[in-house]
Amino acid sequence: MIDLRSDTVTRPSEGMRRAMYEAPVGDDVFREDPTVNRLEEYVADLLGKEAALYAPSGTMTNQIGIHVNTSRGDEILVHEGAHVYNYEAGAPALLSGVQIRPLPGEGGVIAPETLRDAIRPENDHFPRTRLLCLENTHNAAGGRIYPLENFAAAAAEARRHGLRVHLDGARLFNAQVATGIPAREWAAHADTVSVCASKGLGAPVGSLLAGDEETIREARRVRKAFGGGMRQAGVVAAAALYAFENNVERLAEDHERARRLAGGLAAAGYEVEPPETNMVLVRVEDVPGFLRELARREVLATPGRPGYVRFCTHLDIGDEEIERAVERVAGLVSVAAGRH
Amino acid sequence: MIDLRSDTVTRPSEGMRRAMYEAPVGDDVFREDPTVNRLEEYVADLLGKEAALYAPSGTMTNQIGIHVNTSRGDEILVHEGAHVYNYEAGAPALLSGVQIRPLPGEGGVIAPETLRDAIRPENDHFPRTRLLCLENTHNAAGGRIYPLENFAAAAAEARRHGLRVHLDGARLFNAQVATGIPAREWAAHADTVSVCASKGLGAPVGSLLAGDEETIREARRVRKAFGGGMRQAGVVAAAALYAFENNVERLAEDHERARRLAGGLAAAGYEVEPPETNMVLVRVEDVPGFLRELARREVLATPGRPGYVRFCTHLDIGDEEIERAVERVAGLVSVAAGRH
Amino acid sequence: MIDLRSDTVTRPSEGMRRAMYEAPVGDDVFREDPTVNRLEEYVADLLGKEAALYAPSGTMTNQIGIHVNTSRGDEILVHEGAHVYNYEAGAPALLSGVQIRPLPGEGGVIAPETLRDAIRPENDHFPRTRLLCLENTHNAAGGRIYPLENFAAAAAEARRHGLRVHLDGARLFNAQVATGIPAREWAAHADTVSVCASKGLGAPVGSLLAGDEETIREARRVRKAFGGGMRQAGVVAAAALYAFENNVERLAEDHERARRLAGGLAAAGYEVEPPETNMVLVRVEDVPGFLRELARREVLATPGRPGYVRFCTHLDIGDEEIERAVERVAGLVSVAAGRH
Amino acid sequence: MIDLRSDTVTRPSEGMRRAMYEAPVGDDVFREDPTVNRLEEYVADLLGKEAALYAPSGTMTNQIGIHVNTSRGDEILVHEGAHVYNYEAGAPALLSGVQIRPLPGEGGVIAPETLRDAIRPENDHFPRTRLLCLENTHNAAGGRIYPLENFAAAAAEARRHGLRVHLDGARLFNAQVATGIPAREWAAHADTVSVCASKGLGAPVGSLLAGDEETIREARRVRKAFGGGMRQAGVVAAAALYAFENNVERLAEDHERARRLAGGLAAAGYEVEPPETNMVLVRVEDVPGFLRELARREVLATPGRPGYVRFCTHLDIGDEEIERAVERVAGLVSVAAGRH
Repeated sequence: MIDLRSDTVTRPSEGMRRAMYEAPVGDDVFREDPTVNRLEEYVADLLGKEAALYAPSGTMTNQIGIHVNTSRGDEILVHEGAHVYNYEAGAPALLSGVQIRPLPGEGGVIAPETLRDAIRPENDHFPRTRLLCLENTHNAAGGRIYPLENFAAAAAEARRHGLRVHLDGARLFNAQVATGIPAREWAAHADTVSVCASKGLGAPVGSLLAGDEETIREARRVRKAFGGGMRQAGVVAAAALYAFENNVERLAEDHERARRLAGGLAAAGYEVEPPETNMVLVRVEDVPGFLRELARREVLATPGRPGYVRFCTHLDIGDEEIERAVERVAGLVSVAAGRH
Repeated sequence: MIDLRSDTVTRPSEGMRRAMYEAPVGDDVFREDPTVNRLEEYVADLLGKEAALYAPSGTMTNQIGIHVNTSRGDEILVHEGAHVYNYEAGAPALLSGVQIRPLPGEGGVIAPETLRDAIRPENDHFPRTRLLCLENTHNAAGGRIYPLENFAAAAAEARRHGLRVHLDGARLFNAQVATGIPAREWAAHADTVSVCASKGLGAPVGSLLAGDEETIREARRVRKAFGGGMRQAGVVAAAALYAFENNVERLAEDHERARRLAGGLAAAGYEVEPPETNMVLVRVEDVPGFLRELARREVLATPGRPGYVRFCTHLDIGDEEIERAVERVAGLVSVAAGRH
Repeated sequence: MIDLRSDTVTRPSEGMRRAMYEAPVGDDVFREDPTVNRLEEYVADLLGKEAALYAPSGTMTNQIGIHVNTSRGDEILVHEGAHVYNYEAGAPALLSGVQIRPLPGEGGVIAPETLRDAIRPENDHFPRTRLLCLENTHNAAGGRIYPLENFAAAAAEARRHGLRVHLDGARLFNAQVATGIPAREWAAHADTVSVCASKGLGAPVGSLLAGDEETIREARRVRKAFGGGMRQAGVVAAAALYAFENNVERLAEDHERARRLAGGLAAAGYEVEPPETNMVLVRVEDVPGFLRELARREVLATPGRPGYVRFCTHLDIGDEEIERAVERVAGLVSVAAGRH
Repeated sequence: MIDLRSDTVTRPSEGMRRAMYEAPVGDDVFREDPTVNRLEEYVADLLGKEAALYAPSGTMTNQIGIHVNTSRGDEILVHEGAHVYNYEAGAPALLSGVQIRPLPGEGGVIAPETLRDAIRPENDHFPRTRLLCLENTHNAAGGRIYPLENFAAAAAEARRHGLRVHLDGARLFNAQVATGIPAREWAAHADTVSVCASKGLGAPVGSLLAGDEETIREARRVRKAFGGGMRQAGVVAAAALYAFENNVERLAEDHERARRLAGGLAAAGYEVEPPETNMVLVRVEDVPGFLRELARREVLATPGRPGYVRFCTHLDIGDEEIERAVERVAGLVSVAAGRH
């Protein structure tokens, strides 16, 4: 089985498992876990922020980010394909009492004019527009990179109207590796940044929220209320630290393999979006039907945006798996076109 | 000053004031106010529902409707121009913990396919899609009527997927009068219906939520929690009852005057949307600037949807006011076009 | 039927009805209702605050008060018999996401030491203690007055720890009339004060929240979200204004009649708590059974705190009703004692 | 340093670390992690429930338990010393919109009469009483066991009034080992049960919520919204599984050492509560001052309930540490009594 569903499916490597096995730990609720402390400092530094907080999932770091940047009754602006809007189980309303306003934009990018028109004027009838959430790379857009200048422009427009900015950077390091621009340059435009140690970096568990000291202190309290305070969290934080220290540069291989996969499928006659990072979107008529056919040929993928299937490369996919995937998928081109 | 901002600005008539003056009352929290009880029965009957509940505002009846039809963490589908999404201060997230999913649609109408595509499949990542809210007439679309067959189709699609349906009928009786179709025919497709006694019907205060016995019993409890339980509410309910008994048919005059106003402005060179009920949308380049000019000529209007000014006819606007409004506005046609 | 259930059951007097009939009104959502504006100024002034806001119920003004003084996740301190804890349908958690910490205290009074011990230290495990709510007069304690010096001491202790203070003054003017101390002296120790125009003052509908300009501006926005924004609210605000202008001093009569009732019942052999304002608590063995017997003799009362029945005097109860009530209730003394 | 602050401070043993190192894992969000699946089955079986769910903390499993057993606006009954009320950062109001009603009771036990009197009748003024949360062993009471017959009586009383029952069993296995009664006998009286693999069992991270299939399916969805969904969670679940398989019986040693510590301190002149499980409460005049003195002598403890210091035995405390702790603490007896 070649599993191209997501970069979340990777299994920890031998080195990573050893790091966990040997990790010094303590009770993180008392802030005494040296591995967690080291990880938090490492990631804060990587992102150019004063502090960071380790939590069990990217959903939690996003939701804590939303929580600390808003008050109940506020409105937040997100791209209509945003993970926080579509894949986090309605948490912004549930956990923070905030309304989401989804905005359109090609490739996950929100134009400053779109943003400006969406910011509500002060009026008792309207919720207060308080936060802009941007996502980089943009999952639903197929791993598209948020160009730094567009990111800066959107953030600047938001700030001009008094909004705060949260960056869902679950795959921010894919953008760094693909462009050569350090992650911290995007992070510089955001108040809070969420990054995942799982996904392409290959750790089994965990995400971090970075920001200034005061915001992260408050985030720590919110994490407790959300049930994200763990005890000897160092046992898993060790894997996350290993991931940040060892697996960032190798994301380039995932990107190269995604390009290879895209090329192979295009050559086989598929309509393929050229990948910018580690995801390949392929046009098919009947998404669930096509996925079933794939599975019969021992290739796993997921629905992408409507009308597309998504293949995702990752740590556990080597050159050979790509070659075999192309072979197995090639034969289904007429199924993809709905001619079967 | 000719006030065409909204049909909410009407002042109670002599007859209505007398009804309030003479109303028998009691403590409605104990359900002992005969006027409130009579009003609730009257409106339930008008809408073909088992029961109704009186509350201080249309925002409250909409929000109670949302509350009783959902659980925390659910998602509700609304038109992107919906009042509950844009003019109720973010209440669905604040009061009910539910996420809003705004949908596009010409004239406030949501196509069944749009609806179907927006209903999320069962998956732990997604909020549960639980409720469809429709609005008739549609305020942001300029008082457009939701055609009954489209309404029925949307509601049927919603039910096919297990959703409940709430009708924001703040101006439902405008639709009834304009089409000759009884309000209850729309109401028949909804689980809960909110209607306003203020707006075109001219009462100073109050709205009602109608539905089945059990739902309205629960709504009564929610009203208490929201702070909407009033004591001798009969003193205002009397005006609402008067409005329902006396002012429904006369909405036809507002509609006729809206057509007259639209005709006059079109004749003066304005780009005007033909009104379906009591609102007239006029295209202008600079909305705030145009409104200021209007006010200097003693005509009040409000912003409509982007790029439009909205004029609204109502009980306190007679033929003479329409004539004078046309005269005063006519001279601003070059201002509207941005040539000044 | 002699209705001594509550001072909420009063019907508006002829003068009050006339005030409503003649009230100049406008659209209060646009802040153009002269009667509402006058009422808000009048009550702000009465309480020595910068501003006030009219809302449909005391539950709503209390809940808005809680909302504007807290953030989600905070904890508020109240007496264990507090109205906001026991009679507002769980609204603090529902509408504001705050936890209630109920405290003991004789007669509704919370000792400063009790308060101090209940304020949680800064620690991620604890909610933040943010608000103290006091109630004067205290309903569950049988209309007991919160002595000014105790009130000041509790408020001072709260402030020393950075808490804000809300006064549920639904019956604050009963305390004023009974003691001769102006209501504003209690109000001076609170950030927000809620007072009712219904209850003893006899208006059919409405309460006000008073505080500083900024807090009340925010309260106005929250009122919108809670569904408490009304249009030509002047029609009922007129009655509230009439109540504040005409019915404060006459609360003394209710107090006198409560004393008379208490005396009569004590003379008949009942165990009676000496009333401080307009409520009389009488010890009975079987509360529901006793209330049923009362009703058969055409006297209505309600359960007081456990083991007690509560009688409440008000505007619609004259000397004659008190006399008759004593006569009718006197014969039930053996029922009260459980000997029947 | 002898760390007797909490049984949460234990570090994973060599065997446990090896179990983590070797654990087969998969993506638990897709339910493909064999170690998590095995752990969930193991614990469900241990507790006699159909299903269980692994989550990152005991706070999260408690809060999910509260969430799935209630609707927004409900009230839950807990002991006034309950962890969910005092140490979970106000989460019940924040995450579930429910009000807490704290009840008194010796040793963490709530008498059925207390319970019955606290269940509110059906009335729009009251929140609905929906859930009883019991805690066994009871942390704030010093690790006291909830006697099975009292537990059964409270649960039966709750059910008689239509309430559901949640058991916070963070230390339920301490009760099992101390009494010889299987944990599942308490669990049989509850709809949902939360148990911790950290605390005395010594795993670094994680708790489980057990209940019937349907409830746990819903709990899984709520876990996602709360941010508790982890990917290759097997790496930590392996430690939890190891803890349940290997460390339950050895809790007896912690209990024996707690008795030894209590005996030693009593012999030294302290006023000591005889321990039922692994916690020792010692009366001191000035808690913070005494803790500082202890720390200077390299013994760590925490505040217990007011006026008490708590010592907690655990996996990393052997006989030798107990002996040395007694020696070091003995000399402070006059400090404890406030004579210094």
